[in-house]
Amino acid sequence: MNKAVTVSQEDEVLSEIQEQSGRRKFFKKTAAYSMSALAASSVLMPVKIKAEKHHGQGDPAILEEQVWGTTFGYPVTHNLYGLPSPYESNVTRRTTELLSSGNMYASIAVSPIHELSGIITPNGLFFNRCHGGTAEIDYNKHRLMIHGLVEKPLVLTMDELKRYPSVSRIHFIECPANGGPEWRNPQFPSIQFAKGFMSCAEWTGVYIKDILKDLGLKPEAKWMLAEGMDNSHMGRTVPIDKVLDDAMIVWGQNGEALRPEQGYPIRLLLPGWEGNLMVKWLGRLEFASEPFYAKEETAKYTALKPSGKAIQHFYANEVNSVITSPCPEKPWSDLKKGDVVEIEGLAWSGMGTIKGVDISLDGGKNWKEASLKGLVLPQAWTRFSFIYKYEGKALFLSSRARDDAGYVQPSVKQERDAVGVEGVYHRNGIHTWEVTANGEVKNVQILS
Amino acid sequence: MNKAVTVSQEDEVLSEIQEQSGRRKFFKKTAAYSMSALAASSVLMPVKIKAEKHHGQGDPAILEEQVWGTTFGYPVTHNLYGLPSPYESNVTRRTTELLSSGNMYASIAVSPIHELSGIITPNGLFFNRCHGGTAEIDYNKHRLMIHGLVEKPLVLTMDELKRYPSVSRIHFIECPANGGPEWRNPQFPSIQFAKGFMSCAEWTGVYIKDILKDLGLKPEAKWMLAEGMDNSHMGRTVPIDKVLDDAMIVWGQNGEALRPEQGYPIRLLLPGWEGNLMVKWLGRLEFASEPFYAKEETAKYTALKPSGKAIQHFYANEVNSVITSPCPEKPWSDLKKGDVVEIEGLAWSGMGTIKGVDISLDGGKNWKEASLKGLVLPQAWTRFSFIYKYEGKALFLSSRARDDAGYVQPSVKQERDAVGVEGVYHRNGIHTWEVTANGEVKNVQILS
Repeated sequence: MNKAVTVSQEDEVLSEIQEQSGRRKFFKKTAAYSMSALAASSVLMPVKIKAEKHHGQGDPAILEEQVWGTTFGYPVTHNLYGLPSPYESNVTRRTTELLSSGNMYASIAVSPIHELSGIITPNGLFFNRCHGGTAEIDYNKHRLMIHGLVEKPLVLTMDELKRYPSVSRIHFIECPANGGPEWRNPQFPSIQFAKGFMSCAEWTGVYIKDILKDLGLKPEAKWMLAEGMDNSHMGRTVPIDKVLDDAMIVWGQNGEALRPEQGYPIRLLLPGWEGNLMVKWLGRLEFASEPFYAKEETAKYTALKPSGKAIQHFYANEVNSVITSPCPEKPWSDLKKGDVVEIEGLAWSGMGTIKGVDISLDGGKNWKEASLKGLVLPQAWTRFSFIYKYEGKALFLSSRARDDAGYVQPSVKQERDAVGVEGVYHRNGIHTWEVTANGEVKNVQILS
Repeated sequence: MNKAVTVSQEDEVLSEIQEQSGRRKFFKKTAAYSMSALAASSVLMPVKIKAEKHHGQGDPAILEEQVWGTTFGYPVTHNLYGLPSPYESNVTRRTTELLSSGNMYASIAVSPIHELSGIITPNGLFFNRCHGGTAEIDYNKHRLMIHGLVEKPLVLTMDELKRYPSVSRIHFIECPANGGPEWRNPQFPSIQFAKGFMSCAEWTGVYIKDILKDLGLKPEAKWMLAEGMDNSHMGRTVPIDKVLDDAMIVWGQNGEALRPEQGYPIRLLLPGWEGNLMVKWLGRLEFASEPFYAKEETAKYTALKPSGKAIQHFYANEVNSVITSPCPEKPWSDLKKGDVVEIEGLAWSGMGTIKGVDISLDGGKNWKEASLKGLVLPQAWTRFSFIYKYEGKALFLSSRARDDAGYVQPSVKQERDAVGVEGVYHRNGIHTWEVTANGEVKNVQILS
């Protein structure tokens, strides 16, 4: 049997996760792979394998030649764009009606952040929030209009826009409702649903300030409206200071064009600020002296206070962190007492650069410093690591990040005391996993 | 008409590039999009668009509401993994029989480096070289054996391997034959075919030195054989110094699992060294006191000298650069005299970090310094930029990179004088594009 199975053969073994998607159906890692048994052989090159004295002794997977070692794989013409391995079909964005009130056009698909490595989220797994479905815009017919309080209003084709000198930056995007579902009661026994409203990518585009050099921004221009050209015509207002600091119009994400669900051909990027401000399918920027109070910044994305009034103009996502391993989807069930294991996680701040992360094993009573690893960049995911010798005992595992703007993650109690419990957005209280004595991981909330 | 076209509708408009691939057939950016004309309307929110005084005046694309602004797009459940926009179907890996001698199992698919932004190559566009086709390995059945001159040989499952503390690094991988096709005569009027034998990604895995801590490497171990478990059983030998420096076993690429064509579930990563050494579908590491002289390091990947003998042990890809815009696929045909344009390109060195890049407009007689932009990391692609006022005159555009190890790209003549013309590998002579007076870009070679 040739292992280059056809699509129809693959379809016989389905993953329940993939059934809800239109994607080509793939194996799960754990799915049975129908394969005729192969005679053990030692065709490995250049030496024959002997059964050495190790724990894999007698393991058929190392003693027997596998089918992929004896037959041609796919030719290079097979898949000139490409997809992940069928054995990774479990690694996918996910959604539920709980997040969408049953309307999948104004919904969110969350990212499997526990399965990601490094700080880049591949485009196929980048979380997706939309208000009127994913628009599939014709590149050739799309225009960007820049008008309002500028001396010279402008309409650009996409080719014209891309002629500006480009800038590339790695930044996270986070929905301000990230973590929101568990604010009053932990709802999801899952890191993906609890904390997957975010992703991080390398973005390429142009600083808006560089375009404005030619347009003559009038001094009374204090606010910028960004409007999407999708069905929802999402509109958000941005203060001029942010526009003239680091606001970008981006067309590139991780080296290629934005995916349709990320706003192809262009979206607004406001490093560190709420994801909903970063208008996708961007078609219009209008400068004005007053805020616009567009629908999505009055009916939504405001912070309800105990008084019943709402805070309207707040933008940056505060310093935050979450332990990604272990987590409910990555328990420690197979660990044995004495095993050395890496506790790993992500920290991020919309205010600046992560300076450090502390880890608690007892739900916040005692803290030890984790190490940061890999690139540490402003308004970007930063990985932290803590090497731990597993004792087979129950733990309450928490992480607490701090940034170079001087902010530290508050305890849940500190956060409640400061901003109340009414608002679903901007929750950055310290997050805790309960690790049971048998290695299961539960989503809990510890107040103090 | 709903813009969420079905696959069968899309199939009516084909790109000739995609016909050779098994990929879902997509529009080209320039392909006609069959769409019924829509009445002009001003449903944009919250202000009505007036035809302002700008060059877009009268442009139907800005005056008329498009179909994607009035109908729902795809729901979030539509594509939980995702693919690029149909309008980007032209951005794909490509191959020709010229590169493969007609055997697509031992072939190469090159990366569209002129279409990439930033320094990350998305996994669907990462160049793909294989010797026996793309193996599709069962994650659960794959094993890594580490043996030879170690006290404690070891066989690891993939889950066991991933338990080691991980490291993430951004590095390029380059085939040493990159640029080879044009060594004696420029063959391809294309940057993708001339220089697309490389890509750059964020890799996650474990340093081999960290695994060896537990295994007891014997002092007489001077070489390591890496063997792939695909049909070709690719074998390459690596000197122990590199192994103990920064050699990694990687499972993550740009945040997700390696794609099958990149060696899923694991490959060897040797930062800055020849791509062919970074064995894919890695299944065995054997330590020995002598080199192994495996097939692919004797029949291939050697440097033929004028004497007829070949250099065998050379590994690092030397400092190199190429201008990606303009290039044959991205001409300056639509530029007008006086337009300000960004000359952009990629520089890289297997020896270290890029220190600077110079640009020549006259084929190497005079040089001006370009600026580096974005992240500048060791053994990683580095973007350079040079702002130029287009004069409508013919140019010979060259780039010359230098690294922090003290190396500078040689002229083609200097390179020929030093290593002769016999070898196809490790060509890093200064590359030149001829830009004609009407903005066409040709692949030329300038000796001096």
